Amino acid sequence: MDLIWTEESSRPVFKNRLFSIRESLCRSPSGKTGIYTAMDAPDWAVVVPVLDDAQGRRFVMVRQWRHGARELSLEFPGGVFERGENPEEAAARELEEETAYRPSRVTRLGEMSPNPAIMGNRVHFFLAEDLADTGNQRLDEDEYVNVELLPAEEVIRAMGKPPYIHALMAAALMLYLQRGGTF
Amino acid sequence: MDLIWTEESSRPVFKNRLFSIRESLCRSPSGKTGIYTAMDAPDWAVVVPVLDDAQGRRFVMVRQWRHGARELSLEFPGGVFERGENPEEAAARELEEETAYRPSRVTRLGEMSPNPAIMGNRVHFFLAEDLADTGNQRLDEDEYVNVELLPAEEVIRAMGKPPYIHALMAAALMLYLQRGGTF
Repeated sequence: MDLIWTEESSRPVFKNRLFSIRESLCRSPSGKTGIYTAMDAPDWAVVVPVLDDAQGRRFVMVRQWRHGARELSLEFPGGVFERGENPEEAAARELEEETAYRPSRVTRLGEMSPNPAIMGNRVHFFLAEDLADTGNQRLDEDEYVNVELLPAEEVIRAMGKPPYIHALMAAALMLYLQRGGTF
Repeated sequence: MDLIWTEESSRPVFKNRLFSIRESLCRSPSGKTGIYTAMDAPDWAVVVPVLDDAQGRRFVMVRQWRHGARELSLEFPGGVFERGENPEEAAARELEEETAYRPSRVTRLGEMSPNPAIMGNRVHFFLAEDLADTGNQRLDEDEYVNVELLPAEEVIRAMGKPPYIHALMAAALMLYLQRGGTF
């Protein structure tokens, strides 16, 4: 079956400082048209930071309030790309700003759509290794974040149960495991 | 550090048939206020349907155009809950409507936020087993879907590379593996 749609036109119907909403007139594979709505927002990075020492492998994670779900969420660090920044640099910068850990090695784990049905942007996943604590945490004025070091095994076992509620962190963990992590 | 915010008021600023946007005045742990925007939408199900036979374990997946990302995506079946429906029934219904496979066993894998920073809804993950092909595929008028049977190992290996671009499918796979799947 032919599955490809074509977009005949598109217009913004809402915009704020975080995202915009577009309505597009699209033509189906069989020639019918309809209006489809989607959200555009900047690409962002999610960084899986690993700390290996005598205590074994731990992840550096951040606990913070999330206004969409209206609850606390324990997550891998990350943030939005700045204009002109290369993705690995952005990942390292976001990690250091949120947690004060600076990686000397950043590896791409993959790049996916957070939800291709309704979102136009991409989330880029990274592994960050060889972390040094620079003491240089620089939170935004409205960021309240607890940095926590958690055994990797515990996170893998607990993902999906509160406070590990963020599905895109489960996706990050999937790509981490795909890369050779053990289950 | 105290991390809990309180919402002082909230108002809708955009609404269509799929979702609505709210702007909320929120008070931070230190007492400052700010406006935060989020999207509310119905909860939905993602179903990991497994088929075990002489060819080994395969997943039943659907390939379809996605208007947000403007590309084809190969995904686990799923869809929005209907009012009053119990989640397992909704999962079985959505699976049969999209693929014609009816499960005799549906198990919850977990429930997460698709993105707690900006989304107020939940995605519910299920495992569907003992599938029977009823021949009763019932697509919506604007659904163009290819049903594909794919070796589980291949999907686990390829997740994150096109056409496996949907990050919430990686999250579903993470919960599937957490349940005892092998990597």
